[in-house]
Amino acid sequence: MDEVERLLEAIRRRDAKTVGLQFPVGLRPRAVALAAELEKRAGVTCLISADPSFGACDVSEMPVDLIVHLAHAPMPHLRYRNVFFYDMPTPLPDSWSFLDAALPMITKRVGLLTTTQHREWVPHIVSHLNAAQVLGCDYFTATNLADRVDSYLYVGTGDFHPLGVAIIVDKPVVIADPSTGEARTLEAVKDRILRQRWGAIVRAQEAQTFGIIVSRKLGQDRSALAAELKAKVEAKGRAGHIFHMDLVGPELLEGYKVDAWVSTACPRIAIEDYLRYKQPILTPQELEIVLGERTWEDYVFDEIRA
Amino acid sequence: MDEVERLLEAIRRRDAKTVGLQFPVGLRPRAVALAAELEKRAGVTCLISADPSFGACDVSEMPVDLIVHLAHAPMPHLRYRNVFFYDMPTPLPDSWSFLDAALPMITKRVGLLTTTQHREWVPHIVSHLNAAQVLGCDYFTATNLADRVDSYLYVGTGDFHPLGVAIIVDKPVVIADPSTGEARTLEAVKDRILRQRWGAIVRAQEAQTFGIIVSRKLGQDRSALAAELKAKVEAKGRAGHIFHMDLVGPELLEGYKVDAWVSTACPRIAIEDYLRYKQPILTPQELEIVLGERTWEDYVFDEIRA
Repeated sequence: MDEVERLLEAIRRRDAKTVGLQFPVGLRPRAVALAAELEKRAGVTCLISADPSFGACDVSEMPVDLIVHLAHAPMPHLRYRNVFFYDMPTPLPDSWSFLDAALPMITKRVGLLTTTQHREWVPHIVSHLNAAQVLGCDYFTATNLADRVDSYLYVGTGDFHPLGVAIIVDKPVVIADPSTGEARTLEAVKDRILRQRWGAIVRAQEAQTFGIIVSRKLGQDRSALAAELKAKVEAKGRAGHIFHMDLVGPELLEGYKVDAWVSTACPRIAIEDYLRYKQPILTPQELEIVLGERTWEDYVFDEIRA
Repeated sequence: MDEVERLLEAIRRRDAKTVGLQFPVGLRPRAVALAAELEKRAGVTCLISADPSFGACDVSEMPVDLIVHLAHAPMPHLRYRNVFFYDMPTPLPDSWSFLDAALPMITKRVGLLTTTQHREWVPHIVSHLNAAQVLGCDYFTATNLADRVDSYLYVGTGDFHPLGVAIIVDKPVVIADPSTGEARTLEAVKDRILRQRWGAIVRAQEAQTFGIIVSRKLGQDRSALAAELKAKVEAKGRAGHIFHMDLVGPELLEGYKVDAWVSTACPRIAIEDYLRYKQPILTPQELEIVLGERTWEDYVFDEIRA
């Protein structure tokens, strides 16, 4: 079936006259052509959202009958209004050499982890790794597998998701990266990040004023958690103030008289952008360590769950 | 009266339990102290907005009973909900030397222009310039004065507002800048900007696809104008697509297959940030010149009016 046909059906079904389109950066080159095609074939008026689109946690508000959100899958616990997720699974790769590169690093009992846009790869990966026992492919169930596997194989790009697993499970995590064709273990990165997080916690020990960041984005808004953290901070005789924002960035937080930040927005911010911030920036769990309510031994990555 | 007392009154009057605070960059150092004082004296919970606050055209949406927008005056044609404008007029300067510097450049019949935060300066400026006949001090009435003055004196910082006047009135405009203590004429800047605008128009002549930018900001949303421009572009056999966004910036517009941008958002974007964009970025009036519907002789700066 014509790939656009699915979209046209959704537009007809909802009798939409105006359609908003949201693209991640990588699909921007296709935005104008898709808008032109929909305007021509469905007789609608399209608005292209030029706000950043980081994921399904971040659906833009647009004055249209239907929002088409491309390339992300809906988050099950969120209620979306008038959003059609036009999911685009990543096509199968030309070569599976990144799996061959990973083979020497993984154990016989391996847990397979990947992200939703690679879901059609899973049977191929499983048959390619026939030496290994593949027990699961869901990121969120990684911990459920812990007793039955000796290592994890993450197929995808970027360190963030497998890092969270590596920190919780304390078993080797190997990344097979289709974009580079290579495989690597996460040990060195994990050690460096954990040292950095410990450094952030130490730096925040003496903070008198905490700025607690709350996101305005649909799937990142943890206002209730922020209010709890503010109360915890105040119970320890320190000051906590809530900062409400859409995009989070270091330049937007410059100039405020705040000694340390706590981000309840996207969990990646504190971890991946740490060095860009002048003051230490913590996750909620790290704040608990600073306040003496959690031990370093119980350190976990922050996650936004239902 | 205690400066904060006005704010406390507004909070009491509306029986607000939660208060959102919006600061321009320059006032960020006072944000935490003000939030702390309001929480203590009014028993409210404050949220500090960390979204950029460029002006009264740009009031953040916040989940609070009352939004306090600092340092800008409301725009008369906008309908705000639950917003208290906590206007902070700029204190009188230590020295009026910037006016003395301007004296040799202005004519006897001079129109005085300034911005709302300097309104308390006006009687002082008038008495300081007693050689000159001061006829008005409202930016929007600058053209009304044109027959009665031979030059204009703008008291304030930045080139944008006086530049718009200089282009419409074709009379000398002198800037007396309290931040530098100096005065200058606008001729050279005006010539440079007009050359640049002409260059943008020439560069956009051959554009086949126009991206028409619409802002999501309350006071910058000109969707109807954007729809008109799209229709005009299409009537000339070219393509026009609407791009909907909050913040506008060059990195957010990279990657789209667009030959030229037209901004219906803040009029400053096309003029002040022109060199940061890869494609030419035009104002609506400049698009009309490109499409042959306006002549260069009728060139005017874009303005958002009621």
